[in-house]
Amino acid sequence: MKLWDKGIPTDKKTDIFTVGNDRELDLVLAEYDVIGSMAHAKMLGKTGLLNDKEVSELLTGLEEILADIKAGNFAIEDSFEDVHSKVEYLLTEKVGDAGKKIHTARSRNDQVLTDVHLYLKAELTTIKQQVKELFDLLMAMANEHQNVLLPGYTHLQVAMPSSFGMWFSAYAESLIDDVVMLNAALTVTDQNPLGSAAGYGSSFPIDRTFTTNELGFATLKYNSVSAQMSRGKTEKTTAFALASVAGTLSKLAMDICLYLSQNFNFISLPQHLTTGSSIMPHKKNPDIFELIRGKCNKIQALPYELTLITNNLPSGYHREFQLLKEGLFPSLQTLKSCLEMAHYSIKEIKVNDNILDDKKYDYLFTVDALNELVAQGIPFRDAYKVVGEQVENGTFVSPKATKHSHEGSINNLCLNEIAQKMENIIIYSLKGNNTL
Amino acid sequence: MKLWDKGIPTDKKTDIFTVGNDRELDLVLAEYDVIGSMAHAKMLGKTGLLNDKEVSELLTGLEEILADIKAGNFAIEDSFEDVHSKVEYLLTEKVGDAGKKIHTARSRNDQVLTDVHLYLKAELTTIKQQVKELFDLLMAMANEHQNVLLPGYTHLQVAMPSSFGMWFSAYAESLIDDVVMLNAALTVTDQNPLGSAAGYGSSFPIDRTFTTNELGFATLKYNSVSAQMSRGKTEKTTAFALASVAGTLSKLAMDICLYLSQNFNFISLPQHLTTGSSIMPHKKNPDIFELIRGKCNKIQALPYELTLITNNLPSGYHREFQLLKEGLFPSLQTLKSCLEMAHYSIKEIKVNDNILDDKKYDYLFTVDALNELVAQGIPFRDAYKVVGEQVENGTFVSPKATKHSHEGSINNLCLNEIAQKMENIIIYSLKGNNTL
Amino acid sequence: MKLWDKGIPTDKKTDIFTVGNDRELDLVLAEYDVIGSMAHAKMLGKTGLLNDKEVSELLTGLEEILADIKAGNFAIEDSFEDVHSKVEYLLTEKVGDAGKKIHTARSRNDQVLTDVHLYLKAELTTIKQQVKELFDLLMAMANEHQNVLLPGYTHLQVAMPSSFGMWFSAYAESLIDDVVMLNAALTVTDQNPLGSAAGYGSSFPIDRTFTTNELGFATLKYNSVSAQMSRGKTEKTTAFALASVAGTLSKLAMDICLYLSQNFNFISLPQHLTTGSSIMPHKKNPDIFELIRGKCNKIQALPYELTLITNNLPSGYHREFQLLKEGLFPSLQTLKSCLEMAHYSIKEIKVNDNILDDKKYDYLFTVDALNELVAQGIPFRDAYKVVGEQVENGTFVSPKATKHSHEGSINNLCLNEIAQKMENIIIYSLKGNNTL
Amino acid sequence: MKLWDKGIPTDKKTDIFTVGNDRELDLVLAEYDVIGSMAHAKMLGKTGLLNDKEVSELLTGLEEILADIKAGNFAIEDSFEDVHSKVEYLLTEKVGDAGKKIHTARSRNDQVLTDVHLYLKAELTTIKQQVKELFDLLMAMANEHQNVLLPGYTHLQVAMPSSFGMWFSAYAESLIDDVVMLNAALTVTDQNPLGSAAGYGSSFPIDRTFTTNELGFATLKYNSVSAQMSRGKTEKTTAFALASVAGTLSKLAMDICLYLSQNFNFISLPQHLTTGSSIMPHKKNPDIFELIRGKCNKIQALPYELTLITNNLPSGYHREFQLLKEGLFPSLQTLKSCLEMAHYSIKEIKVNDNILDDKKYDYLFTVDALNELVAQGIPFRDAYKVVGEQVENGTFVSPKATKHSHEGSINNLCLNEIAQKMENIIIYSLKGNNTL
Repeated sequence: MKLWDKGIPTDKKTDIFTVGNDRELDLVLAEYDVIGSMAHAKMLGKTGLLNDKEVSELLTGLEEILADIKAGNFAIEDSFEDVHSKVEYLLTEKVGDAGKKIHTARSRNDQVLTDVHLYLKAELTTIKQQVKELFDLLMAMANEHQNVLLPGYTHLQVAMPSSFGMWFSAYAESLIDDVVMLNAALTVTDQNPLGSAAGYGSSFPIDRTFTTNELGFATLKYNSVSAQMSRGKTEKTTAFALASVAGTLSKLAMDICLYLSQNFNFISLPQHLTTGSSIMPHKKNPDIFELIRGKCNKIQALPYELTLITNNLPSGYHREFQLLKEGLFPSLQTLKSCLEMAHYSIKEIKVNDNILDDKKYDYLFTVDALNELVAQGIPFRDAYKVVGEQVENGTFVSPKATKHSHEGSINNLCLNEIAQKMENIIIYSLKGNNTL
Repeated sequence: MKLWDKGIPTDKKTDIFTVGNDRELDLVLAEYDVIGSMAHAKMLGKTGLLNDKEVSELLTGLEEILADIKAGNFAIEDSFEDVHSKVEYLLTEKVGDAGKKIHTARSRNDQVLTDVHLYLKAELTTIKQQVKELFDLLMAMANEHQNVLLPGYTHLQVAMPSSFGMWFSAYAESLIDDVVMLNAALTVTDQNPLGSAAGYGSSFPIDRTFTTNELGFATLKYNSVSAQMSRGKTEKTTAFALASVAGTLSKLAMDICLYLSQNFNFISLPQHLTTGSSIMPHKKNPDIFELIRGKCNKIQALPYELTLITNNLPSGYHREFQLLKEGLFPSLQTLKSCLEMAHYSIKEIKVNDNILDDKKYDYLFTVDALNELVAQGIPFRDAYKVVGEQVENGTFVSPKATKHSHEGSINNLCLNEIAQKMENIIIYSLKGNNTL
Repeated sequence: MKLWDKGIPTDKKTDIFTVGNDRELDLVLAEYDVIGSMAHAKMLGKTGLLNDKEVSELLTGLEEILADIKAGNFAIEDSFEDVHSKVEYLLTEKVGDAGKKIHTARSRNDQVLTDVHLYLKAELTTIKQQVKELFDLLMAMANEHQNVLLPGYTHLQVAMPSSFGMWFSAYAESLIDDVVMLNAALTVTDQNPLGSAAGYGSSFPIDRTFTTNELGFATLKYNSVSAQMSRGKTEKTTAFALASVAGTLSKLAMDICLYLSQNFNFISLPQHLTTGSSIMPHKKNPDIFELIRGKCNKIQALPYELTLITNNLPSGYHREFQLLKEGLFPSLQTLKSCLEMAHYSIKEIKVNDNILDDKKYDYLFTVDALNELVAQGIPFRDAYKVVGEQVENGTFVSPKATKHSHEGSINNLCLNEIAQKMENIIIYSLKGNNTL
Repeated sequence: MKLWDKGIPTDKKTDIFTVGNDRELDLVLAEYDVIGSMAHAKMLGKTGLLNDKEVSELLTGLEEILADIKAGNFAIEDSFEDVHSKVEYLLTEKVGDAGKKIHTARSRNDQVLTDVHLYLKAELTTIKQQVKELFDLLMAMANEHQNVLLPGYTHLQVAMPSSFGMWFSAYAESLIDDVVMLNAALTVTDQNPLGSAAGYGSSFPIDRTFTTNELGFATLKYNSVSAQMSRGKTEKTTAFALASVAGTLSKLAMDICLYLSQNFNFISLPQHLTTGSSIMPHKKNPDIFELIRGKCNKIQALPYELTLITNNLPSGYHREFQLLKEGLFPSLQTLKSCLEMAHYSIKEIKVNDNILDDKKYDYLFTVDALNELVAQGIPFRDAYKVVGEQVENGTFVSPKATKHSHEGSINNLCLNEIAQKMENIIIYSLKGNNTL
């Protein structure tokens, strides 16, 4: 027996290899699988492919299954290959022969496509809502701490004055761009693939406009081949949007970890959000933010995984499309938990309001001082000389305050305008506007 | 002297290392750099930071430089570090002291950000236009060849009937999703960063709303730190959109290369679009489509490159942001040329209209035949038995025709509906709607 | 309550967020954790940091735990954070106070590093063995079918004669390069990090050379900071090697899926290795090879995930290093199962030996015919004309046989030489040679 | 005329699209193309495919061309598609009819493969040499500054004592692992593909063992299909090795940028290696290290680009393989310049030897103090209490010195052992050992 052979029989191995962890991943699809089947059943009735009694039986059976799923009473045992076969089994058990007819004019291909589209729509909508809540928190923190100054860095070198107002609301405003990406993913997802069957449509006279309305999709993915080709493409588009949000969170987490270091000491976190040691009392490890950073960095690798799985495959279904779920579904959960933990932890951040007392920040204001002389009419070169000499003589006195006035500057954060911009983007509905 | 040491003096090496190929890459920014400077100069006049005479001189000088750039009379010599220093040099040469004042209340950071935003807006708009033209071509090809049947594959196995109408318009409809991504990138790009200076704003009383209107941006990137953080983020968002278009093109090119193989022989290309050999007369290498595939696959690696360059860097400018251009700018040109060559070559495709005569495609219609029996009232299991026996006995006769009726099926392509969906998306303007 | 809030208390959420699926992933480390502790205990005894009785008690306890692990009687319950705390708990339960001393002069950082190094060594060795078995199979298949000709393609166009002998042994020889990469990963892994503590060494007078010998490592990762920095780097190196093997397997799987298509029909698989349909008797979906392709493509994304998690982090431990396991550990299992399923399925491949009877392959031999004329002394240009005319007149007669003689050609496969090259590489031991 | 249409005629556009920047990229191959042709010519003579006079003429012609290339007198004009056609043109111009015979029994496919293998061998060897020089420098810096202490961080929190000796030599030791990867790439590259023709061998009785010896390859890539499949695979393997070196350099550059920040202030650089401003005298922007970081991060994206270009392509040549050069060749030059600039700049680093005077580092030694009490026989729990109380009372006195003794600790860096390990790896020759 080979080193890696655990004595599992070949059939079992093949099953493990081909089914993989589909049963576990499919659980989140159960609800949408039933909803899709309900719309499909009604459509089969409307087009006369099923009679009223059959439709009624199917809907009753599906309602019961849906209730069980929502109550947590649903599992996919090893005897079922996936969520679809389990739901069909339950349905046939409940309603007999009619249950076998639910699959008329449908293929597992468009069934899973529909499930995934419905699932992604729901998840993307939740993520948008979470992003909005984090935005609101960051805006509130910016407002609260808008007068607390902070050194601004370029090249990781102390450069110019900034503030906690600037810093918090900068990340808030960045999240607006992420919502633009989430909207794009929602738009791509919001097209009904049901009825495309195995990717080449069906010879039954089905009514795809009916199921589109029934399922609340904004439009049809008309062309059946195109609907099939959305497998992979929809996932990638979603992954791009997740990567966008994750990029913002990761960068914010990096800033927070740096600012919590004793070498910056700009902010602090309560004890329950850090880990430490009683003999190293200074040590407050920001595990949560390190993990937000790492998890969000991992999410940023997702688009490449999905691209590699699908790339250079000719059109038509290929079995490995099933693997797209493996990376994508957990990433959705991870991003939601990162957003939740970020919200939970950021609101506990305490800012240090004496940061600029440290003399290493004294030269932050040289540019402002220079600009002030210029504004007073002193030619630039002369002004430059004056400030340069003050610095050299050690007579430069840091004002430790700014009087910036333009839009988006320390003393004019434009929080209302930024909030309005977010409103304009976030209200985007599947029938609505997407303008700044 | 070391093996790899070519005897270049250290200063020169450092220059080569730090400036890199910026001078070459920056050429495309020249136009936008001047336009940005014109808006900035007017704003400095409006806010009283420059007097009318200075503004007038600056505008005259900048107009001249712009004319030279458009006429192709602009170069960045080795004595200049980048486009900004060359433009400033020319300006000072033309208008004297006023030229030196153009940099008031501005930093190279927000200057290059503005240039890049304007450039990306223009390029993304061009790409959208090209995508629309390719869409129109594919729709026309679908319309023209809608009655020519084609085998549809799943698992690369002959599966069910498809058609050239389905195939061409499937890619057309997929391009709509890519336009959604391009719109998202345009939305993200269409925010004015000018005035954010080195990332922390300016102490001068500048008017950013004025330059926003002047430059035709839809809105401001308000927060100066956020504007600075858009460096990298805007590029990544653009790269996601490019990758989306590239993914569609690459898949289409793969199909074409396969269909041109003697083993498929579904389509052919005129001689000037293939390479071959007179002693291998069958050989028609589809170099253009192979290169479209390869170039588009390379573009799909771009987001990863940009992510790696920027990831885990704390907020604030870092010098390597300059490297973002190296991958992005050529990719824009590559994608445009791929779109152009795709349009140029696809319109020359000849379809083979006897494909289904080959007996290996006879079983394509078994599912349709089965469905027809079911539609006639024969129970599924019985119908299945009938067709199965015909197949086994070799008595199954392929109808070689379909009568599909639903939306997005072979005989009901919904080309008008797909065209309308594209119209709804493509008309998205920077102030407009983005709905399906 | 928020949409995504399932009512889980915050503490529990934080635990889920920070511990993640570590308990599950850590199970494979249990064995190595105990082995590492045994070496550490002996060393503490040797250096006098523990007395003989303590060492003896610890070893007895650890032996018992190891036996339980090997017998499958080991679990990491929710009350334990990871494998290390569970093992330490069991040990203390078994041997009392001595158990608490096992952690002297050790940190969880070097403990997990050691576990991971030992685990990766074992897994890489297994994978090498599996690669060798697949190599042997491919070589045997090449030998068996060496006389069966096959069209060779360039640009996916029928080009020149090839053979199953060439095709099978080409992939065999490619696997040799993958073993070179596996050897590199083994070399990098085969360095002892134990004793580096939290990344800065220990003030205890420990003996790292002793544990190196005890654990069978080829050498020490001397510098404690370097040992700590190997976290991430070792994983990436391993991932590069896995990606190398996966790339070869994926390409082979793509060839197989194509060759199984009705449009090629070069090979066939027995029914139990395909899925199909009784009304589509031609359809034999090669799910296993599609999944090998997809799983191996996913593995090729792993290096980028690991790079993104670790990149741009300054030196020193960061909490997210824990996330490296999430992608790497399952990938090792996936690659092993792909190698196993590939071996299991490839040996069942039947080759079609009449392929060249199809007239579309007639021109395969034009280059050979031309070369023969040249070899007979006819000038190239004249020979070219002769063959060209035969082709044009339709008088070209395909010999359907080759007489190639050089090393690595159809009629001189050099299977012995290739087998010897593999031997030279595969015998690489951790103290041995690595030459071609 | 379309927006993006610059009025370039179609033929020219097709040429630009298909040839791309091959002419420029190919320049580095010229030397190897000639060397490959010399070996090929000799082999053709030996096997009687050319007569002695022809061989002699060819060699004379090729020698002249080689001399011109080495003297910098070689260009590939627009009238030539690539380096091969230019060399063949020159050769025919010099030696007449014999020049036309050089291509006997060779295809452009194996010709470019041979060129690339020879080129990569040379470049990888140079990079190894540069890595060794950087290693030597880091070891010397470690030796020089081994007594200067530095805070060690975990979680970016001040944790335990480290030293410049530890820090410099940690990166040195990490480079050894990169050399292991470079050796693996060299081994993969060091196999002769010449004679594989278009990927299916040749019907001419060529002698590939002869050219293998002639060109100094360690062995043959025997199987012609395998030789062809090494296109892409060899490049990816090389890219993995480059990414490995780049990862180490990038991390080192990140540390340096952080340590140069005023918030760390551990090291400084002379003025000519930083950029700054006279009114911000504190500002010393480490542009060179930021660019090393960024360029090395970009290189780490290279394997992904190469994977995307080649992945899921069936066996046999595809035109887009030509695009592999576009990313790889410049990356080799970039990595060499990063190594050169790193060496040039790191040797100028001045270390600050009063770092630990800052009171924020006082608690660095609590673990050492605790260990010392334990070593004196005080039970751990009691010792912990003692140190904990000192910390709480503010009576803990930092010793600001370490007495670590084990291998790889602050006071026992094992520089000799690390140097020996590098020697063992670096001496790897193409026929030699690769052991630690």
